[in-house]
Amino acid sequence: MRGNSFGKAFNITTFGESHGPALGVIIDGCPPGIDIDENFIQSEMDRRKPGQSAIVTQRKEGDVVEILSGVFEGKTTGTPLSMLIRNTNQKSKDYSHIADKFRPSHADFTYQKKYGLRDYRGGGRSSARETAARVAAAAIAKLILAKEGIQINGYVSRVGNISFSGALDDSNIPNIEKTPVRCPDLEVAQQMEDLIREVRKEGNTIGGIVSCNINGVPPGLGEPVFDKLHADLGKAMLSINAAKGFEYGSGFEGTFMKGSEHNDAFVIEDGKAKTATNYSGGIQGGISNGMPIYFNVAFKPVATIMQDQQSIDQNMEEQTIKGKGRHDPCVLPRAVPIVEAMAALVLVDHWLRQKTI
Amino acid sequence: MRGNSFGKAFNITTFGESHGPALGVIIDGCPPGIDIDENFIQSEMDRRKPGQSAIVTQRKEGDVVEILSGVFEGKTTGTPLSMLIRNTNQKSKDYSHIADKFRPSHADFTYQKKYGLRDYRGGGRSSARETAARVAAAAIAKLILAKEGIQINGYVSRVGNISFSGALDDSNIPNIEKTPVRCPDLEVAQQMEDLIREVRKEGNTIGGIVSCNINGVPPGLGEPVFDKLHADLGKAMLSINAAKGFEYGSGFEGTFMKGSEHNDAFVIEDGKAKTATNYSGGIQGGISNGMPIYFNVAFKPVATIMQDQQSIDQNMEEQTIKGKGRHDPCVLPRAVPIVEAMAALVLVDHWLRQKTI
Amino acid sequence: MRGNSFGKAFNITTFGESHGPALGVIIDGCPPGIDIDENFIQSEMDRRKPGQSAIVTQRKEGDVVEILSGVFEGKTTGTPLSMLIRNTNQKSKDYSHIADKFRPSHADFTYQKKYGLRDYRGGGRSSARETAARVAAAAIAKLILAKEGIQINGYVSRVGNISFSGALDDSNIPNIEKTPVRCPDLEVAQQMEDLIREVRKEGNTIGGIVSCNINGVPPGLGEPVFDKLHADLGKAMLSINAAKGFEYGSGFEGTFMKGSEHNDAFVIEDGKAKTATNYSGGIQGGISNGMPIYFNVAFKPVATIMQDQQSIDQNMEEQTIKGKGRHDPCVLPRAVPIVEAMAALVLVDHWLRQKTI
Amino acid sequence: MRGNSFGKAFNITTFGESHGPALGVIIDGCPPGIDIDENFIQSEMDRRKPGQSAIVTQRKEGDVVEILSGVFEGKTTGTPLSMLIRNTNQKSKDYSHIADKFRPSHADFTYQKKYGLRDYRGGGRSSARETAARVAAAAIAKLILAKEGIQINGYVSRVGNISFSGALDDSNIPNIEKTPVRCPDLEVAQQMEDLIREVRKEGNTIGGIVSCNINGVPPGLGEPVFDKLHADLGKAMLSINAAKGFEYGSGFEGTFMKGSEHNDAFVIEDGKAKTATNYSGGIQGGISNGMPIYFNVAFKPVATIMQDQQSIDQNMEEQTIKGKGRHDPCVLPRAVPIVEAMAALVLVDHWLRQKTI
Repeated sequence: MRGNSFGKAFNITTFGESHGPALGVIIDGCPPGIDIDENFIQSEMDRRKPGQSAIVTQRKEGDVVEILSGVFEGKTTGTPLSMLIRNTNQKSKDYSHIADKFRPSHADFTYQKKYGLRDYRGGGRSSARETAARVAAAAIAKLILAKEGIQINGYVSRVGNISFSGALDDSNIPNIEKTPVRCPDLEVAQQMEDLIREVRKEGNTIGGIVSCNINGVPPGLGEPVFDKLHADLGKAMLSINAAKGFEYGSGFEGTFMKGSEHNDAFVIEDGKAKTATNYSGGIQGGISNGMPIYFNVAFKPVATIMQDQQSIDQNMEEQTIKGKGRHDPCVLPRAVPIVEAMAALVLVDHWLRQKTI
Repeated sequence: MRGNSFGKAFNITTFGESHGPALGVIIDGCPPGIDIDENFIQSEMDRRKPGQSAIVTQRKEGDVVEILSGVFEGKTTGTPLSMLIRNTNQKSKDYSHIADKFRPSHADFTYQKKYGLRDYRGGGRSSARETAARVAAAAIAKLILAKEGIQINGYVSRVGNISFSGALDDSNIPNIEKTPVRCPDLEVAQQMEDLIREVRKEGNTIGGIVSCNINGVPPGLGEPVFDKLHADLGKAMLSINAAKGFEYGSGFEGTFMKGSEHNDAFVIEDGKAKTATNYSGGIQGGISNGMPIYFNVAFKPVATIMQDQQSIDQNMEEQTIKGKGRHDPCVLPRAVPIVEAMAALVLVDHWLRQKTI
Repeated sequence: MRGNSFGKAFNITTFGESHGPALGVIIDGCPPGIDIDENFIQSEMDRRKPGQSAIVTQRKEGDVVEILSGVFEGKTTGTPLSMLIRNTNQKSKDYSHIADKFRPSHADFTYQKKYGLRDYRGGGRSSARETAARVAAAAIAKLILAKEGIQINGYVSRVGNISFSGALDDSNIPNIEKTPVRCPDLEVAQQMEDLIREVRKEGNTIGGIVSCNINGVPPGLGEPVFDKLHADLGKAMLSINAAKGFEYGSGFEGTFMKGSEHNDAFVIEDGKAKTATNYSGGIQGGISNGMPIYFNVAFKPVATIMQDQQSIDQNMEEQTIKGKGRHDPCVLPRAVPIVEAMAALVLVDHWLRQKTI
Repeated sequence: MRGNSFGKAFNITTFGESHGPALGVIIDGCPPGIDIDENFIQSEMDRRKPGQSAIVTQRKEGDVVEILSGVFEGKTTGTPLSMLIRNTNQKSKDYSHIADKFRPSHADFTYQKKYGLRDYRGGGRSSARETAARVAAAAIAKLILAKEGIQINGYVSRVGNISFSGALDDSNIPNIEKTPVRCPDLEVAQQMEDLIREVRKEGNTIGGIVSCNINGVPPGLGEPVFDKLHADLGKAMLSINAAKGFEYGSGFEGTFMKGSEHNDAFVIEDGKAKTATNYSGGIQGGISNGMPIYFNVAFKPVATIMQDQQSIDQNMEEQTIKGKGRHDPCVLPRAVPIVEAMAALVLVDHWLRQKTI
């Protein structure tokens, strides 16, 4: 009812506030016998964590994952796999100035209205810090998917008006992690980085798009009516902080097309069924067809800016809020591992669900 | 696990294939004491049903709803409210030509791969006919929401490249149902209608966008992490047949903006908290803030065209499929009540969930 | 939230009131490719339906099942399988005398308190008539379980103080359906029948015990913590109208024993692991161990008696209620197929769930 | 799917193995604004923990609860409330002798069959140590219920053949915690204690019954069909380690009665509706009627005995298992707070669910 769980067969429940003692996650539904590579889990955490480069927030968080259950002698046991991430760098005093004020386009006002009270420190539960728990759970999901040959690659395809519109392929995938912006074209990446630096100098923020490609998905994943594969991917992506839109396959652009142009003709290639084009984005009728899945996620400019803003307080009086603290001028680079994480959680869930057919 | 249910507190489960004996829905979680207006339910069904105008499919389906349970002396009782819609106009022989062929960009191939067999008549469960059951359930949801002052208005904002980009307000809302395309601007509606006729003449189809405005939502609806209000709306919309994308508030366009432009300053107006702008689309941190909610849904050109197409059959041999039958050249006009229906189901669910806070 | 669904992988949702237009059920999660034997479904319905013999209620209900979806060319398709049972013999006027009175030990009072209104005709949703929908769904479950070699046999082991305490085996299983009481010992069955006739003559009712044996369950079904196999069986049985208790294996009697007597030693028999005794009732730590599962369900004397009783009405005034209508003097014989039905639903659900390990 | 969660509105998920780093629980659905009394939580933990008295296991476990999230300035926030309990006294080497043997009537064999591998240390996830997490969560539930005037009292009513059959009332409730056995009659408690000591001397164990009374439950809690209040209580109790049976109200004894004796006549007392007798156990049609709820739970003699036993190993060879370690000769006294905990979790869940009516 409170929506802190995700997935039906590979079910995760996260907990934790940005400035509480810890964050964490329970995975209920992890199959037994999976080899747990703790270095891989930590490397995924490191991709998400703040302070990685000059263009993201300089807060330092260790984001060290401790596995508390569900693993025995290096393998999953089939019982709940829980992971703990201690918060070690909270500075609650940074937030006393907003204890009774509502930051524009943040969740302060809506939490207060929903619950009647709120943990105002760093946004509490509404902080993107919660996604650390998702990334930890998704690292396990990725270990399972890798064994099935399913590969997920997220990347930044646009920052403001600087965009990469090429295709992702084996030649540029290795570039993604080479630059702090995570764009597969190194030149475009440099332009994006320049833009982000410029925006940061103004005490401002900027939005953009994270794209994601998924290869190796077998046909048959996804459920036909409400839990269509793309509907679950859409919900997963829209549940990420600052996400404003989702499109898959031909997306919004495809709506200008005619059916005769948009339909993906089936062909036989090397004795296997394929489609000549892939406007469907690898999903037809909500079920994977074996072709690559691809989608875009829109992220707004983050709400915390280093400029004064008009707002109100709990007494319904107008107030000016001053920008303070250590924040991301652009959420896109750090959103890449989170987008991949949510994709992995959706895919592993549907892969397990399909076993009951 | 099979994803035929939607909603946690106002939970619906639908059943039925396009060419089986009947479709239907069970609502589990409808509060007791709601006055049931059967005429209203039927009028909602009529907005969705085929054959309403010259620009939609000319199949005739009565779509008569029979309430089987959960209502006593005109009021809901709090027990499961089930509704039955008999299929009366199925012509299964229309489909024998595709019994072993996979129509491009339909769900034929993926169903076969998922289940190992499929009901090929009219797409079976993958047919948009399933949405009749959703519209019936949502009519009950709308009756509940209306009592709370929540108003949902869907409309066609673009067909191909003909678009209406104005604002929806009291002056043009009454126009929506005046034309078969359901665009609130009568002139634009005429252009859209012309385009649809033209496309139909070619035996082709065209995509577009359905937009939706929701007014009167109190602050506090939506859950903070996975079940954000916009994430649930997104999943709901993406679960509609032919949907390819979802964006709310500033959406994809907003990603070009800077934080200082995009943030919605809080102001006090008539003693109430409002935001000066509404790029947030009425939702902050996944929770409604009391401002209007608005979003767009992208619909692809429907896959059934009256032209020959390349495809394959179950024996993995290439085949030509000929277009036949009675189909919509443009799904947009009939998608409007379905978009509204899914929005109503999400809102009534979150409205009930909020009662447990 | 309203508890009209049961099962996680093989999920059923029932609807319907005893005197409404119809009852029914949707199965969401039925695997595809199951051969549907409609005669078997109907025979299961006939075992539950009233009017089968002189010792049960003489109401006539056809209980004809119509399959509305999820079956194509005689096989399940994997989509929701829904079944409809029309109510054809309702006499609502029989109930006008209790429209504003609360029958003792019925659900009239509690429904009124819960919902603020109620469908008083025949108990509405609280009537055991609802179990017809469960039996229909469970017939499908039994078809699946039979293919796996899982056999469920319920029987009446006690009526009042007449009891059968022997073991169920191949020699007496065929006797169960030979007498109207469904006790596997024909002599004891006669005594039970005599007792029921005597009680009926007094306008009274009597309780007893239904026992159930399940053979052929493979080891490994059941989940370790909350969804222990016996916990799910217990909930399933206690959800049947008039059930007051559940015990499995050694049950309440076993609590007098010492550990050294009660422990089931493992032995190897014909190269297979067995236990020398079976006080565990085939379930250890909530998970099946391959030995026969057995349990007892206590049923109270049904509340509807043909005698005057003291009660109150909606105005909180004391009233006398007169016994009227056509009712069972003893619910036990008709409870047997319902106990089996709920056992089948639990087992098929856990069998499917185990596939995701 | 893996059954580590319980409750729909007040949903808990537990994790942890007896000899892993920690146990814990996430509550998703705790209402905001509840005052958290950490001393009360710890006192509940202390009632369950081992080593409290001479008649229970002498293992020492601190069972210190650390709240990790969901509480701010002493009040719940409405976000997931998670609690961590470190395991501090594990001696894994105690269990090496059973690494490849299956202890009789334990879950060793079934876990191995279910998962293909198992954490054999102390039973791993199958250990009753898992109930510590339930007790922690239920302490929060009790704080909520106490505000609503709902009082839960568990007690030991039978050990072996020593039984207390009196009624629980204000005069003897204070006795429950006065003796290590938790029987409200001090003399009977002494006899029970003597029996337990005697059994322990033999290296044996003994079963019995925990009874529970719940007062102050308002009418209307519970759902009519599958989630009947007593069905959920039954599942909750049967999910406790070593539980073998559940009965409520008149239970198994009531099945000997006739309807005319068993029906609870409604009467008006002080202007309020009551029943003259309470064979219904406070629940009619699965819904509370405002009268006291009472039920019994049967617990088998615990399986770990200090005697040699016949069994088998993973190679399917017969083996003798020697009793070792620190264990309870009788689980009943420590089961009392666990029975109360599960009752509290069921009640708070249904209390929250009723808010959506």
